[in-house]
Amino acid sequence: MGSEVSEARKAAAIKAMEYLGRARVVGLGTGSTVEVFLRLASGRLMDRVVVASSTDTALLASQLGLRVLDPSTVDRVDLYVDSADEVDLLGRMVKGGGAAMTMEKVLASAADLRVFVVDELKVVPRVPHARPIPVEVLPQAISFVRRRLGELGYSVSVRVSQGKRGPVVTDLGGVVLDVTPPRDADLVEVARTLRSIPGVVEHGLFVDLVDVLVIGRLSGSVETVTFRR
Amino acid sequence: MGSEVSEARKAAAIKAMEYLGRARVVGLGTGSTVEVFLRLASGRLMDRVVVASSTDTALLASQLGLRVLDPSTVDRVDLYVDSADEVDLLGRMVKGGGAAMTMEKVLASAADLRVFVVDELKVVPRVPHARPIPVEVLPQAISFVRRRLGELGYSVSVRVSQGKRGPVVTDLGGVVLDVTPPRDADLVEVARTLRSIPGVVEHGLFVDLVDVLVIGRLSGSVETVTFRR
Repeated sequence: MGSEVSEARKAAAIKAMEYLGRARVVGLGTGSTVEVFLRLASGRLMDRVVVASSTDTALLASQLGLRVLDPSTVDRVDLYVDSADEVDLLGRMVKGGGAAMTMEKVLASAADLRVFVVDELKVVPRVPHARPIPVEVLPQAISFVRRRLGELGYSVSVRVSQGKRGPVVTDLGGVVLDVTPPRDADLVEVARTLRSIPGVVEHGLFVDLVDVLVIGRLSGSVETVTFRR
Repeated sequence: MGSEVSEARKAAAIKAMEYLGRARVVGLGTGSTVEVFLRLASGRLMDRVVVASSTDTALLASQLGLRVLDPSTVDRVDLYVDSADEVDLLGRMVKGGGAAMTMEKVLASAADLRVFVVDELKVVPRVPHARPIPVEVLPQAISFVRRRLGELGYSVSVRVSQGKRGPVVTDLGGVVLDVTPPRDADLVEVARTLRSIPGVVEHGLFVDLVDVLVIGRLSGSVETVTFRR
């Protein structure tokens, strides 16, 4: 990754820290941009508690000395901070490159304020752009869901692990299908279709789940876009 | 259970065997009525293969000498046979007393023909009638989903295990909330709402998933209701 991208993420993460305010319970997404935020913000998180969307984020937060809540005990999050793989200026996102989209969506849904931090390379004209949509599926239902999506005109690929033989297994025990909807499919309809198939646990299309989008430009400037709930 | 109910189920299960036809792959639900069917039909299932919606059904089928497929390899089922906790004459059902509704819905959705076998005590004027709707939830999301359902006016109870301390854990690793929608809530809307909450894996409201309903009367007669796809 170029140092300009690193600097853009860092500048955006610093800007995102302004939203910490009086938040007591801070939800955290997953991935390299979240790691940048977490390392920068750890000092200011010491007297708060965090809840993590993945084992990766939980362990990092713990190593940084933070108190990490058991997600099963959390019914509300004051602030949620995360990044995205693709985002457009309607606030629609593709997430799940790190296969953590299910708990990311739970935490974003549970949050009073949702701040997403991205470098400008993540901003696309219209989501989904170049990336497939990650879909978490019960392993028992993988063949059925794959067939059903194929019948609906989606192209489907099973995400294969690099560290074990066969499919990636998520922190929740699911497998991941990376799917591409038919051309010109309506995004909201795609979201509804994916969720309606038995065996699908969750998918990485996020609609209406961002309040503030903080974009780090490669030039070094930071732009903030606010969305109405 | 009264012997009349037993006999009613048995008569209905015998009737259901007529639908075995040339089915090669037979999906099986979970519960005492399915057990009745399976014991009666096992001879005729010997030269076919079955796929089970639960560990309970899989072990029973195996003990009866049947070949049980790994569900992850199954993308289509010729015939699915199951029962229901409540059913109305629009073919709407509540399922999940045995906490197997998620894989039951996957298999029913994967099936070319779906036959449900019930005694007449299961037939209600309108679903949901007396029973709450079982909802399978990621254990990590239990507090969040509970709060969200409460905000939507649902009453929610965590299903507690008799064999371990705390919540029932399903064959899939989920927990079960038994929920009652607000009075006069529209059933299709309830189904959509339940499925739309992040952290919900599946729910026990079955709509448009039955082709043939076989009802065993306490009088000993059997009634068959066929639904249009």
